[in-house]
Formats: sequence, C-alpha cells, structure tokens
Amino acid sequence: MDTGLPNAAGVSRYAQLAQELRQRIVGGEWAAGAAIPAETELAERFGVALGTVRQAVAMLAAEGIVQRVHGKGTFVTQGLNGPSLLRFFRFRGPTDEPPTARVHRCQTVRLRAAEALALGQQTGDAALRVKRVRLLAGRPVLAEDLLLPLARFEALRALPTREWEDLLYPMLARLCGVTVARANDELSFGHLDAATAALLDLPEGAPAIRVDRQAFDLGGHCIELRTTWGDATAFHYSAEMR
Amino acid sequence: MDTGLPNAAGVSRYAQLAQELRQRIVGGEWAAGAAIPAETELAERFGVALGTVRQAVAMLAAEGIVQRVHGKGTFVTQGLNGPSLLRFFRFRGPTDEPPTARVHRCQTVRLRAAEALALGQQTGDAALRVKRVRLLAGRPVLAEDLLLPLARFEALRALPTREWEDLLYPMLARLCGVTVARANDELSFGHLDAATAALLDLPEGAPAIRVDRQAFDLGGHCIELRTTWGDATAFHYSAEMR
Repeated sequence: MDTGLPNAAGVSRYAQLAQELRQRIVGGEWAAGAAIPAETELAERFGVALGTVRQAVAMLAAEGIVQRVHGKGTFVTQGLNGPSLLRFFRFRGPTDEPPTARVHRCQTVRLRAAEALALGQQTGDAALRVKRVRLLAGRPVLAEDLLLPLARFEALRALPTREWEDLLYPMLARLCGVTVARANDELSFGHLDAATAALLDLPEGAPAIRVDRQAFDLGGHCIELRTTWGDATAFHYSAEMR
Repeated sequence: MDTGLPNAAGVSRYAQLAQELRQRIVGGEWAAGAAIPAETELAERFGVALGTVRQAVAMLAAEGIVQRVHGKGTFVTQGLNGPSLLRFFRFRGPTDEPPTARVHRCQTVRLRAAEALALGQQTGDAALRVKRVRLLAGRPVLAEDLLLPLARFEALRALPTREWEDLLYPMLARLCGVTVARANDELSFGHLDAATAALLDLPEGAPAIRVDRQAFDLGGHCIELRTTWGDATAFHYSAEMR
C-alpha cells in the first residue's frame, strides 16, 4: 500500500483520492498522454475500495484531466494543441494547409490588477506579452495578444521570436512543462483599431469578432489570457441545443 | 411480454429496442415530460436482458429524447421552451423580465427546393412563414423569420397573430402535438437590410449577428427553419474547450 490517504473532515473519500491523483498528475508522476495505473492497482496502492477509485477517476475525467479509452485504460490528457480559435471562422481558400504563426513582439510587462487576479498572480508581477499573427496559406487571418505569467514561462523570455513554434500549447508543454487542459473562450463583436487592422490587412474600423480566452493547466490554474481578433465577415459558429 | 422485437439483420438488439421505444415516444404512448416504464418492466415486456434495455435507454438519452433523473426514473424530454436565442446576446437594461413576442405577419407560402429538402417536404409544399419580433422590457431585440411546414402546423394557420404566445415551442406542443427536442444554431455576421433594421429600431446596414436554426422533433425530423437577427454590438457567447 502507498502512503494512504489522510483524513480530511467533510471531504468524501473519493474526493480525497481525486485530489491525491490530481497532485501526482500535476507534479508529473504520470506525464501528459501516459496511462495512469489500473483501477485495481490504485485501489490496492491507496487502500480504498474499487468503487472509490472509480468515482475519483470519474471526477478527474469530468474535469478533463484524464480521458478514459474504452478497453485500453485511463490516460492523462494530452492537452489542447489544435488551431482551435480558427473554429470560430470560415476563411476562404485552401483549408488543408495547417495555420502558421508569426510572433511580432514579446515583451516583459507588469500585470495590472485585473490581469493578476485572473492569473492568480500579484499586481505588478512580471509577465510576457506576446503579439502574434496566425496565417493560413501565408495570409494573416487572426491577430492575437497573449499574456503569460513569467513565473511559469521563464524559459520563453530568451527565445528569439523567430523560434516560436506554430502551435503554442505543445511548445509550452515541451519548454515549460505546462499542459493546457482546457480553455474558455468569450466571443463578442467590435471594430479593429489601426494597429490590429494593419496586421490583418483590413481597413481600420472593420467589423471583427473578438475572442477573450482563459486557458487552464491540469491543476486548474489560469496560465494564459489571450485576446484574438478576426474578420467578422468570416465568422461562423455552430451550437447545438437540447 | 409485449409484441416482441422483430429480427433485423445487422442491427444490434439494443438498437432495435431503442427504435421501438423511439416510435412509441413519437407516437405519443408516453407523453413529453412523462416517465417511461422502469427498466425491469421494459426488459420483461420486450423479452430482453436488462443490459439491453440499459443500452437502448442510454442511446435515447444521448439523442436527447429521454432524460434520466437519478433516483427518480427516466422521462420523455419536455422539449425546448426557453428564450434560447437570447443566450447569444447581452442586452442592457432590466433582464429579470421575460422576453415577449410580437407576430407581425403569418403567410402561407410554397417551399423552395432547399427549404423543402431541409424540412423533409416536397418543393412547392405549403408552409407558414412567420415574421416575429422578440422584445425585452418592450424594446425590440431580435427579428425572426420562421418557416413551419403546414402539414405539421395546420392548426396555426387560422390563429390570429395577436393570439400567438410569447414562447413558440410550448405553443407548438399544445396546439399541434409537436415537441421540439433539439435545435442547431449556425451563427454568422452580416448587415441589416432596411426592413429588418426598422423592426429593431436600428439604422439600415447596422452590423448584426445572424442565427440560422434548424429545430427537430422527438423523431429527429426537422420541423422548423428560422433566421434570427440581433444587434452585433450586443453579441456575447461563451464556449468551453477541453
């Protein structure tokens, strides 16, 4: 048997086990994409009933931290990596080519109060502010403004802008050990300012869709604030209701 | 035991049972909101194993036809009824007041080819075309164009526009026996034409979010096509990604 679970008043046994497993995943004992031990093994290791293990794993699955693959086992989530913000737009032209990214600027800035609050940092803490453009077939389609707390992403500070990869999240995982497990996108409408319009080859004041993102790591901490702008006339989104 | 299940080559036993239950729900044997019999009772009635019943019910739950309430049983879905298109917008002012509706026009029209295809009708079949405005605190916020096949909604043809209720779907259920189980909304961006702008007290050409809806009954048939327009500056939508 493992260390056993400490008693915590008012917390159910499976929630305690879930917290224990969560800490091991965040701590890297089981890497992103790797299988966690079988339920019977976890039950023995932590000295709990199989039903308790199942409830704990179901809790982590609901949080998006692990994924169960029928007949194969339970895996730590690989994290997000796709060109996800493009799902809100329908750009004309060849779509089979994957999007690329061009970093225009990466500065160290001080977090303002609201930003610090969202990122679980202190006002005035250092962060990287990154201006980036996403391109499809060489044509700029999205303008992005990223804010990444320096405490988690120190390794990126010295990285030349040319060496940033097209996909941000796999790069964050590889260089900084941070896996992005989920993200929340808030869509709204606005008009492009002159600088953003120039990046997108659109006229100043053009109608645009704005996406405000908060991205979270496996531990549920917000590790990125991002604002993305794209041409409103290319906006497209499908929502099902039941 | 009930009639028993016919054998259908290549169709699993639980899929056959799901189809059988689906037909009874659509046929009205169990009404919207009512409980369906317990799983043990269904197993006995159809002469199948309890596991087969569970798989069939899970299939209907995934389709949104039934909803399982822990410890209470399985219920035929009540259907959609809320002011759902407002979820894409954030309008200023008192929000605790429910939206109202004003029907401007209800005409009998002939379906064009694409409309007929989407609605499972023949080109030239009759349909009701309804122009409607949704209001919050008396202020128009959404302009809607509804298309309802006459074959399913004959009872609405003679209804004076003043007597249409604020919520469409409960009215369709009560007057026409059609329960809307799910809907798919496609969002895009455009500019208001003069007539729609006038309905919304906005200038012609104002930026707007357009929502194209297809609504489906319990049997999975498309029973409504709807286009809704709302002020783009009030647009707001939140999407989570994991």
